[in-house]
Amino acid sequence: MGFVVTIVGLGVIGASLGLALKDSPLVEELIGVDPQDHVGKEAVALGAVRRTEKLEAGIENADVVFLCCPLERLEEVIKQAAPVLKPGAVVTDVGSVKQVVMEWFRRWLPGGVYGIGGHPMAGSERTGLAGADRYLFENAVYVLVLPPGTPSGPFETLSQLISCTGAKIITMDAAQHDRLVATASHLPHLAAVALVNQAGKAPEALGLAGGGFRDTTRVASSNPAMWEEIFMFNREAVLDQLDGFIGELNRLRGYIAAADRQRLRQELQAAQALRESVPRGARGALPSACEIITVVLDRPGVIGYLGTVLGEGGINIVDIEILRVREGDGGTIRLGVPSVEDGEKAVKLLRDQGIKAWMR
Amino acid sequence: MGFVVTIVGLGVIGASLGLALKDSPLVEELIGVDPQDHVGKEAVALGAVRRTEKLEAGIENADVVFLCCPLERLEEVIKQAAPVLKPGAVVTDVGSVKQVVMEWFRRWLPGGVYGIGGHPMAGSERTGLAGADRYLFENAVYVLVLPPGTPSGPFETLSQLISCTGAKIITMDAAQHDRLVATASHLPHLAAVALVNQAGKAPEALGLAGGGFRDTTRVASSNPAMWEEIFMFNREAVLDQLDGFIGELNRLRGYIAAADRQRLRQELQAAQALRESVPRGARGALPSACEIITVVLDRPGVIGYLGTVLGEGGINIVDIEILRVREGDGGTIRLGVPSVEDGEKAVKLLRDQGIKAWMR
Repeated sequence: MGFVVTIVGLGVIGASLGLALKDSPLVEELIGVDPQDHVGKEAVALGAVRRTEKLEAGIENADVVFLCCPLERLEEVIKQAAPVLKPGAVVTDVGSVKQVVMEWFRRWLPGGVYGIGGHPMAGSERTGLAGADRYLFENAVYVLVLPPGTPSGPFETLSQLISCTGAKIITMDAAQHDRLVATASHLPHLAAVALVNQAGKAPEALGLAGGGFRDTTRVASSNPAMWEEIFMFNREAVLDQLDGFIGELNRLRGYIAAADRQRLRQELQAAQALRESVPRGARGALPSACEIITVVLDRPGVIGYLGTVLGEGGINIVDIEILRVREGDGGTIRLGVPSVEDGEKAVKLLRDQGIKAWMR
Repeated sequence: MGFVVTIVGLGVIGASLGLALKDSPLVEELIGVDPQDHVGKEAVALGAVRRTEKLEAGIENADVVFLCCPLERLEEVIKQAAPVLKPGAVVTDVGSVKQVVMEWFRRWLPGGVYGIGGHPMAGSERTGLAGADRYLFENAVYVLVLPPGTPSGPFETLSQLISCTGAKIITMDAAQHDRLVATASHLPHLAAVALVNQAGKAPEALGLAGGGFRDTTRVASSNPAMWEEIFMFNREAVLDQLDGFIGELNRLRGYIAAADRQRLRQELQAAQALRESVPRGARGALPSACEIITVVLDRPGVIGYLGTVLGEGGINIVDIEILRVREGDGGTIRLGVPSVEDGEKAVKLLRDQGIKAWMR
């Protein structure tokens, strides 16, 4: 009564998906396809798929096919798959850009096969099978893009499967998706790249780089090949966002050059208010409704001690950041807890142990 | 035989400095000056200074005066202090911009009084006395700017005192300082402000904002009034960096518009390599030479358990970040430890407990 599910491309996303789906009662067969034979074998050994097949044999009986290959190869795979898919099959992808994918689905898939775009907003610091993690999608936003006229059946099938991974499904149209990720993800990446390359002109500056620089440019560390694809496949929206951003910078530049303190402060205040409104607990993490700052001695075991004090009090730490550490001396730590009540309780528990703590 | 030290301005920096200096054998008297009487009283109660005085009485016998007031008020305070200071006194500030301060020192201080610029690169998420922390400067970079011809005596006096706070002193000239902080700190701040305000044009985008957006824009949350001052007092260097940055963005824009994948990839790769070269463990933290990724169950006490396992093994956690959390299920945590040996030992200790862990 379950579905035959095929995952094409057993990298970190495909294999994580497999691990998240394999025990679901909705899944009757879980087949993997990968151009590299050894990857397929390893995926079976890991339990990410039950068996592997070549593309055609792997998808011919599939009810749902997840295409987890790089955007670069996706159109070719869709073309190859199209004539083999059975009527009623649902095909979905996991790419970071959606308009181009929806166009490929429209162009190549036969009538009666449903192409639904997908973008799980989760990533890993590792690539390939070694990074496979059955919890990768837990609490992550998973965007689905339905072509006009999609019947409810294929959407329900796909939603049910994706829900098994713990992801939160939202739907939007492809153009809207591409615009929003250009703003929320692609533009910040370009800004980080430009900031780092600008700093590279005066490398001594990197010696003064503190937490602000590190935070602002962190994403510039990620996979250049993947980002090159994203910028190429979402050119229009990215260029649009870049132009808006350069416009914002020029506006700030004008206020600074004219020493227009009032307008400059308005910009800084607007940004502060807006930034505070961004939901906390990103990285697909649970939102931490409440933050606590605590000052502790920095010595082996102190994180354990903190965690144990709160753990014994039944308080879960959903976010943690070491703000400052002093060798052999003390550290300031930010903790996120799920609710204000938890926060109040945590502060009390810590203070009862003589630990300086306060709610932020 | 110790010094008479006066701290003018008992906000978070001044009061933290007082707490860090008060027990030093180098300090014979520790006097506080603050325009608000109640702040002075609270600072004495906190032990941040031993007594308070009005400005003139507070500084007339001082060997070293730390001016810890906002840049906005600094010139006025220097003018008031100048006629009262005793010959041989050292005056220093804690502002984020140095050329303008050195000019004020030059203009107002009498001969035989030494104005040395200072910039402790440490901040607090709290303002005022409530944020005072005797460890604030521990391991922080503390820039000193010596005017040409400063004798070694005043520099040594000031260095000795600052060393008591645990800060790491580096010296540079004022113009170089202002250029480097424009690159490493002021420009990233403007970029974050512009990114947030750009995203504010399509607020739905904030709902898709993940860890990348949060990291990149985190600094936009900080104090608008302080940043307004910084941009005003470091206008030239900031405008220069903004122009360079807009140039970088336009270059990226050109490559994307022309679909010049090769040049685009070169930029992304250059940024990745440069970003990886930035010393880790910022925020004045100890560098964590080695990073470990571990996957644990997410339940109350698990951070405590992790910390305890490593603490009992004598391993100090110098950095910690929750990469992903899944409700009631599992989490991926990045740990920084001081050395590769510690990292190897930590991975072994965790694996012995059945915890998935690897070195990054």
